[in-house]
Amino acid sequence: MNPNDALEAASFIDASRLLQSIETLARFGARDDGGVDRPALSSVDIDARRFLVEHALALGCTVHTDACANLFFRRPGLEDLPPVMTGSHVDTQPTGGKLDGCYGVLAGLECLAALNDAGIRTRRPLEVVVWTNEEGTRFQPGAMGSSAFVDPALMERYGQTKDADGISLDRALVAHREAFPSLEERVTDKAAHAFIELHIEQGPLLELADVPLGVVKGIQGVRWYAVRCKGVAAHAGTTPMHARHDAMTLAVCIRAEISAFAHQLGGDDTRVTFGRWTVLPNSINTIASDVTFTIDFRHPNPAVLHAFDRQLAACLAHHAVTSEALFIHPPVVFAPSVVQRVADACHALGTHSLNITSGAFHDAMYLARHCPSAMLFVPSRGGISHNPQEATDDDHLVLGTRALAHCLVHLCNEAP
Amino acid sequence: MNPNDALEAASFIDASRLLQSIETLARFGARDDGGVDRPALSSVDIDARRFLVEHALALGCTVHTDACANLFFRRPGLEDLPPVMTGSHVDTQPTGGKLDGCYGVLAGLECLAALNDAGIRTRRPLEVVVWTNEEGTRFQPGAMGSSAFVDPALMERYGQTKDADGISLDRALVAHREAFPSLEERVTDKAAHAFIELHIEQGPLLELADVPLGVVKGIQGVRWYAVRCKGVAAHAGTTPMHARHDAMTLAVCIRAEISAFAHQLGGDDTRVTFGRWTVLPNSINTIASDVTFTIDFRHPNPAVLHAFDRQLAACLAHHAVTSEALFIHPPVVFAPSVVQRVADACHALGTHSLNITSGAFHDAMYLARHCPSAMLFVPSRGGISHNPQEATDDDHLVLGTRALAHCLVHLCNEAP
Repeated sequence: MNPNDALEAASFIDASRLLQSIETLARFGARDDGGVDRPALSSVDIDARRFLVEHALALGCTVHTDACANLFFRRPGLEDLPPVMTGSHVDTQPTGGKLDGCYGVLAGLECLAALNDAGIRTRRPLEVVVWTNEEGTRFQPGAMGSSAFVDPALMERYGQTKDADGISLDRALVAHREAFPSLEERVTDKAAHAFIELHIEQGPLLELADVPLGVVKGIQGVRWYAVRCKGVAAHAGTTPMHARHDAMTLAVCIRAEISAFAHQLGGDDTRVTFGRWTVLPNSINTIASDVTFTIDFRHPNPAVLHAFDRQLAACLAHHAVTSEALFIHPPVVFAPSVVQRVADACHALGTHSLNITSGAFHDAMYLARHCPSAMLFVPSRGGISHNPQEATDDDHLVLGTRALAHCLVHLCNEAP
Repeated sequence: MNPNDALEAASFIDASRLLQSIETLARFGARDDGGVDRPALSSVDIDARRFLVEHALALGCTVHTDACANLFFRRPGLEDLPPVMTGSHVDTQPTGGKLDGCYGVLAGLECLAALNDAGIRTRRPLEVVVWTNEEGTRFQPGAMGSSAFVDPALMERYGQTKDADGISLDRALVAHREAFPSLEERVTDKAAHAFIELHIEQGPLLELADVPLGVVKGIQGVRWYAVRCKGVAAHAGTTPMHARHDAMTLAVCIRAEISAFAHQLGGDDTRVTFGRWTVLPNSINTIASDVTFTIDFRHPNPAVLHAFDRQLAACLAHHAVTSEALFIHPPVVFAPSVVQRVADACHALGTHSLNITSGAFHDAMYLARHCPSAMLFVPSRGGISHNPQEATDDDHLVLGTRALAHCLVHLCNEAP
């Protein structure tokens, strides 16, 4: 390897080409308010994927897919070694922005173009991956593509899940295969050498610290529960207060207790959200008979997560209320070797960086089980994401892509 | 008047005929679970009305209708005096029972039959009325028929309102006229002499007191508001707690404040319910950006209702939150003379009664503006209503009808 290749690749990142590609991809499923609505494997998602496939082919890549419709754009290496992977997803929230996921994919493709333009060859192949259904909006759970890549047995269960219109993932995958009949299956070989995901932060920490790049050391653990409170429907006008069993009164009481012990256990790192509420019969003049609300509790410390589980169980038992665990994931600690490559890239580009624990899930959460992985963040303006107003300064988008190129070249030239 | 006529009429109430008529009417729109689903002016409602019209004609009544499709079954009096009215409604909640409204209409018809059987003539005409769309389930607001009877100018607005299928009340009224082409319009003359509505309590007070009849002295006043709390949607995993604007956190805080001052102002008579909640985006992992919840506050004391309005306005202003008044009605105090007739009837039949303020709205709320009015309640088992399980003991249904007959005969023989 030419010791200057990493910096050379970074310098060949073409800002206007990168920014233009973000705008072009955002046209697929564009919303009137400037946002994007692109459900996984929908017709607009397939159109977006066709654009990406054609773009990758034009860059000289081979394109493969797999059982979960992940797309792999491969730039060959000089040697027959496991590849370095980068990428993210291109499905969006219903009121999503242009950057969440898309930025990581398009930055990866821009790195391929920069390597081409600079005439740089790497020892290892470099693959830019589009992971399917990361958002989990159309099919649950999220991160289907990356988790099924790491554990293909999951596809049996995933295939049966249905979207709101009753269409199964299996059926959506058939439609995807029909849309791309010439794509060959990626041959499963050895684990990748490394995975690195470039992403917008989706939070305010980098902006608050006025630092343009975040070296992501891990992802906090999460607990998702649904808590179901039962009451008795009764007439709002005729039922004395002492004779009521109001499911909403019970629910807000339990919510307050959970919030209190969550903060006590987790301190400043606590993230606790009660985001989804279903109230029955949801009528002005009827006392609620059933209230189900969700808990999203996150923390980087596994001991805190376990203590939360214990206190929650005790709290719900005390109120004779049932709950369902919807999603549980332990904290992820990224591979120090790859984290160091990210930190080195920031340093080599002469830019400040912040060590950060990701508050959001990412495909890298699953890839970390497959190969040494890490992430790189750029700031989100106002910390806003999952929102049409999601934005990152152009300078930050370009700088993040340069840092990615730097990392990738180093990783692609690492010895076996 | 023969001084024994009232007791005689009561004694001619035929229990099995009354109970059979309740079962027969319940067949129109019967649900599999034993309840009734009979939207106002729907085809099943028109079938039910046809049954009632034929029943009334068989009893020798004249039958009239009006601009809101109210039905008037009139038994002539000996003198040309304003009539005494009784009745209720026959539309139901979507998951309604057999008694709410229907009981009052069928008990009225049973009183007419008893008067016929006993050969009793009264000075004043007696009208049994079926008020249209009391529940307000198909067309909003509720109590359309009775309010439009009292204030015919309301029909201009009511006629435009549409049901969930986009059918206007005006169109539904045309269908009703076509179903009953021979019914003549009720000639508007002087106000009625009195109105008395027999109804199930729809609450637990009579059952808790183990008393079979309730003398209803009034209807508590009501305030319906929608409170809209604004926040900022943000990622549940990435947004530090101190940087959040969680609309649900704000909403439950305001709910607690309102509940506290509602109880402080209203004491034991307070009825406060927060029954309907709309949470946006209602996602597990997104902080709520908009929460709208409803307040149903009721109290018999106008001063308490006004104080509630003032404190609510101050509370919402303090939190910079907006609200919308959905429905406002002052407390109704029934005419002491008619209330006394109801109490006398209970006494004459040798049964205990409880003075009660209605917690629910009824057509009598509007009729009280038209003529001296009152209500009579029978117990609701378990206080349950708006529910297929709605039930009242047969003995109570019969006793209530006997008391109604007693009242009606007295009222019908009152001097001008």
